[in-house]
Amino acid sequence: MLTVTRNVRIEWGDCDPAGIVYFPRYFEYFDQCTAALFEAVGYRKPELLAAFDIAGIPLVDARANFRMPSKFGDDVRILTSIPEWGRSSFKVHHRLMKDDALAVEGFETRVWAGHDPARPGGIRAKALPSELFERFRHA
Amino acid sequence: MLTVTRNVRIEWGDCDPAGIVYFPRYFEYFDQCTAALFEAVGYRKPELLAAFDIAGIPLVDARANFRMPSKFGDDVRILTSIPEWGRSSFKVHHRLMKDDALAVEGFETRVWAGHDPARPGGIRAKALPSELFERFRHA
Amino acid sequence: MLTVTRNVRIEWGDCDPAGIVYFPRYFEYFDQCTAALFEAVGYRKPELLAAFDIAGIPLVDARANFRMPSKFGDDVRILTSIPEWGRSSFKVHHRLMKDDALAVEGFETRVWAGHDPARPGGIRAKALPSELFERFRHA
Amino acid sequence: MLTVTRNVRIEWGDCDPAGIVYFPRYFEYFDQCTAALFEAVGYRKPELLAAFDIAGIPLVDARANFRMPSKFGDDVRILTSIPEWGRSSFKVHHRLMKDDALAVEGFETRVWAGHDPARPGGIRAKALPSELFERFRHA
Repeated sequence: MLTVTRNVRIEWGDCDPAGIVYFPRYFEYFDQCTAALFEAVGYRKPELLAAFDIAGIPLVDARANFRMPSKFGDDVRILTSIPEWGRSSFKVHHRLMKDDALAVEGFETRVWAGHDPARPGGIRAKALPSELFERFRHA
Repeated sequence: MLTVTRNVRIEWGDCDPAGIVYFPRYFEYFDQCTAALFEAVGYRKPELLAAFDIAGIPLVDARANFRMPSKFGDDVRILTSIPEWGRSSFKVHHRLMKDDALAVEGFETRVWAGHDPARPGGIRAKALPSELFERFRHA
Repeated sequence: MLTVTRNVRIEWGDCDPAGIVYFPRYFEYFDQCTAALFEAVGYRKPELLAAFDIAGIPLVDARANFRMPSKFGDDVRILTSIPEWGRSSFKVHHRLMKDDALAVEGFETRVWAGHDPARPGGIRAKALPSELFERFRHA
Repeated sequence: MLTVTRNVRIEWGDCDPAGIVYFPRYFEYFDQCTAALFEAVGYRKPELLAAFDIAGIPLVDARANFRMPSKFGDDVRILTSIPEWGRSSFKVHHRLMKDDALAVEGFETRVWAGHDPARPGGIRAKALPSELFERFRHA
């Protein structure tokens, strides 16, 4: 299973008055890691949308467990993989590590969202393309 | 059980290139609603920290289910309550409504975090004060 | 000259480890105020884009002077007006007040941006519609 | 004059419904670049605050000119330098480049802010330390 590692510097502006990461920022980090995972198999986000004519890969569920706080100036790394593929959705798993300890764990369920011809600007789930699986399998 | 309702206008800057709320923003909305809930019983955030000498009420777990997207310009309302109190932690429940439909549901588990005398800047869970329960009971 | 006033609660997540507003958030507040100003003359942002077939009102220049910091829990109010209209651009002025003192002053120069038929997804400045002026004049 | 270059990937979550960077994000990028500049002379942000016993380097003025938009997936680079040092303040200059074109130019005026002994949590400008100049001079 392909796992992508991304190094993240915790920035001043990501932290709150307690001096630690404001928790919604973790979800932003994770979203960027999901994008990095697709880039690792050849699709930067704009190319992903264009190649498969999709509107995006929006979330239906997002969850995170916060075990250890991180402070501005900390360097962490995030390991990201897709443990499960469905027909038109998939799960993403993120592990944010401080040194060798698991500090935050994130879970996303995302939908492969096409444009809905019946509603301009609307989206609807569509089947994941086999070409995408192949890319992940051979990565 | 005390429930606080907050009206939120979805802003342009909260939305992504798909024109819908960028999902980490929902967690920010929910965090603001939790603050509003404590304010409803008499404690604005700075007063809450000062009155009980705590560093904050950080999350150990955050989760959201996204059922319907919202677009910039939409007006939604969020209903927030605390369904469960533990010894040094508590759960917060958020329901983001579009008209009368549940669009996003949020779940937080938060810790009552005191200053750790052993580590400057560090925090540690401490027992929730009975004075706080009383406020919620009589709200 | 139409001036719109917006009350803003400074949220925990808008503040940095120094406990004061992280300065880029002021520009978000101001952007929301500009949207509120257009709404005051009858155009919420999605309606504004649709009614005049524009892509947006992007900035060519943004500036802010920070005179006094604000902390989480503070209630401020922001006064917003358009002191100057050009042919295809306009200036917006924001004054963020703490009690009766000017805490932050903001200046935006924005372009009335139509869709560029020559480049899909591209934008180009177009003349401001007289209908818009009329709305502001009679507000 | 020391100039630091930082490569930035424009992320999906940094962009607005027009598909381009939501302008307050540029100020966040620039803030991170200022931090990177100080790190280049040996002071990561937490060390900078600790080494000189300051509360931060808050802005008194921030400005940006937006010449070309950037889209999600774009790779840009930002060149940052300090063109002018005052007694207790300094100016920072940022140039965000797309390929070889100047896309956004940013200007910050920042204060060297010590803790104010007269007001707990308060700050006040103090003289910039010569040790800091030396670091920049010999970088």
